[in-house]
Amino acid sequence: MIKTMETDLFARMRDDMGPLGKYSDVAEGYFIFPRLEGPLSNRMKFQGREVINWSINDYLGLGRQQEVITEDHNSAEEFGMAYPMGSRMMSGDTKWHEQLENELSEFVDKESTLLLNFGYQGIMSAIDALLTRRDVVVYDANCHACIVDGVRLHSGKRFAFKHNDMESLEKYLGFASKIVKESGGGILVISEGVFGMQGDQGKLKEIIDLKAKYDFRFLVDDAHGFGTLGETGSGAGSFQNVQDEIDLYFSTFAKSMGSLGAFISGDKAIIKYLKYNIRSQIFAKSLPYVVVKGALKRLDMIRRDRTLINKLWANVNKLQDGLKAAGFNLGNSNSCVTPVILNGSVEEAMNLVKDLRENHGIFCSIVVYPVIPKGMILLRLIPTAEHTTEDIEETIAAFTSVSSKLTAGGYV
Amino acid sequence: MIKTMETDLFARMRDDMGPLGKYSDVAEGYFIFPRLEGPLSNRMKFQGREVINWSINDYLGLGRQQEVITEDHNSAEEFGMAYPMGSRMMSGDTKWHEQLENELSEFVDKESTLLLNFGYQGIMSAIDALLTRRDVVVYDANCHACIVDGVRLHSGKRFAFKHNDMESLEKYLGFASKIVKESGGGILVISEGVFGMQGDQGKLKEIIDLKAKYDFRFLVDDAHGFGTLGETGSGAGSFQNVQDEIDLYFSTFAKSMGSLGAFISGDKAIIKYLKYNIRSQIFAKSLPYVVVKGALKRLDMIRRDRTLINKLWANVNKLQDGLKAAGFNLGNSNSCVTPVILNGSVEEAMNLVKDLRENHGIFCSIVVYPVIPKGMILLRLIPTAEHTTEDIEETIAAFTSVSSKLTAGGYV
Repeated sequence: MIKTMETDLFARMRDDMGPLGKYSDVAEGYFIFPRLEGPLSNRMKFQGREVINWSINDYLGLGRQQEVITEDHNSAEEFGMAYPMGSRMMSGDTKWHEQLENELSEFVDKESTLLLNFGYQGIMSAIDALLTRRDVVVYDANCHACIVDGVRLHSGKRFAFKHNDMESLEKYLGFASKIVKESGGGILVISEGVFGMQGDQGKLKEIIDLKAKYDFRFLVDDAHGFGTLGETGSGAGSFQNVQDEIDLYFSTFAKSMGSLGAFISGDKAIIKYLKYNIRSQIFAKSLPYVVVKGALKRLDMIRRDRTLINKLWANVNKLQDGLKAAGFNLGNSNSCVTPVILNGSVEEAMNLVKDLRENHGIFCSIVVYPVIPKGMILLRLIPTAEHTTEDIEETIAAFTSVSSKLTAGGYV
Repeated sequence: MIKTMETDLFARMRDDMGPLGKYSDVAEGYFIFPRLEGPLSNRMKFQGREVINWSINDYLGLGRQQEVITEDHNSAEEFGMAYPMGSRMMSGDTKWHEQLENELSEFVDKESTLLLNFGYQGIMSAIDALLTRRDVVVYDANCHACIVDGVRLHSGKRFAFKHNDMESLEKYLGFASKIVKESGGGILVISEGVFGMQGDQGKLKEIIDLKAKYDFRFLVDDAHGFGTLGETGSGAGSFQNVQDEIDLYFSTFAKSMGSLGAFISGDKAIIKYLKYNIRSQIFAKSLPYVVVKGALKRLDMIRRDRTLINKLWANVNKLQDGLKAAGFNLGNSNSCVTPVILNGSVEEAMNLVKDLRENHGIFCSIVVYPVIPKGMILLRLIPTAEHTTEDIEETIAAFTSVSSKLTAGGYV
């Protein structure tokens, strides 16, 4: 066979950097891959200038608490970052992993918990482990990329229902029920406690009500609800008073816990099944001791009292009420995630964000087409317990100013 | 529709805990999920007793070096474990991430590098990002689970060639070439620098020689080669003198670097493409500052001189030569990974390992059917720079003793 050089796998990538990569020349380091410098805080440095920071998910401010930092560095001093080595199944288990699992089970009111070395691959492999070809998965179309990747590993039927649309869900549950009646499989429904981009809670209660008509198990990703919603901060299931009916409850430590790693909780037998069959865990390194010890400390601080959660919600309410009073559209948010929805082109959005950062000292994330419909601009603010009234007032004033300028065509 | 309760997704899992889970009652905490206690070391505690530890991949002993632990705890003291928060694309980038990428590029002799927040999901999503439906992937049948999961995400054709068998690879390259000639896609070949279970290096040179006849790009997972092979420790590609012909070089920090996270290196344009299109990175938390700073320190220590690598290889040679002299079959290992292959039933294997741990104070990992063929027992030893001559001599004596007992039917 003669080498032809017709078919180079890399040629396509050299020609087309993809939907985000094509903007890299103008956007990298500013709109994409920006660098927030200094300790985690409500005010951090961006390109040498102090900005009010609305872009990090450290909801309770735990990531910057001295008590937390001290625990992290004490654990690192004890064993370094390496311990334990290997997968938990082979050589990476410790009694602290089990202790954290037990404390999490109690906190989220489930029989049993499995720690996950990383949220993305954790839930992805959990979905993979739960399903066989005969099973059907029905998931909210707005679910996070990690859930979508888990569903992509599934070799059987899958349906994405319209975001939070119970009519659409019921239609697909009808299809799914017919399929599993033939195949002898089961149905897994997946939604989120809080959708991280637009801040609306998943309609967990409405979904669970459908269990009266359809047989399915329900997995909830509560990355943004855990630590922020419910009486004790135990999440969206608790807030909606349906925690018992959630079959598998997943959350990450990368948001309100200010750390890394994740966990999944549910009935003892199913969690044990996962423990022995979840590929990204049995074939990869266990969560480090430093992270496990740190998560125990953080959980302890969340459970201690409602001080941090009350501070968070005082700020959420102040920010959201203030923005609404100033006439802003916050979509359907009923969580801490605060989207401000404006109308304009991608170019206007970029100019507006630049104005916010350069002239108003406000740093927030921005989402535009193709992630959301053409002509829509979504500025996402994440209030935390550490923000001040001054931060909030300055931000509302700045938003009012840039919004007027946008309407007047000032960012064309 | 009437609820039937015929089809419960969870019923199957309650009935059958899977290939490993079914042994949980007898094996958990001993053969599966064992706990090695105390600081990482050549001697650790297992169930209260000191054992010589051959089960952790801390090849260079970096995970227990005071210089490394000091760096880890200083970084944790500075910012805690949380900084930076968010994905690198949104808010999780720092100048240290870029510095580490640059230093890794230089060390592994590639134009550019992308850090990955976790090896498993990192390479999985890299494979996903590199391939379209029109492309074909051809991979070694013994590749690690993370590569298999990456391939499972691929919607086009895939072929697994017989482990390290160039005839099998060439057959599939022939098939693949015909397919991409029609489809207009490209071919990705995947192998490993060192296969972690049996210790044989991937035949990188022989694979690369096939580039003269077939168009393909070559991705190598060098998890066990990085830091252990080659003049400077830069891996199997360097050892086999073919680093330039490896198109994408991947390794993890979870083995010789004694940490977590991973990286992928290659041509600038392709790494940039990955940076903007790799789902598990653009949609998940960035590698923490503590880990990035710690990796810079560890890389610095590897590059400083060959002291650690020389210590490692002195131990590898002493252990492997001694075992061979004592008549043991080490398979095709040509790396640090030291498999000892015995013949016996699963039950005999369990009794032998128990004897090794209880009466000889030797802790190593064990692999049996169904991971390897029925009747085969594989004991895996991972020598490190920190093992002593005494550790090695005691171990060879113990292996000689238990092997005789096995042959005499003493573990039936």
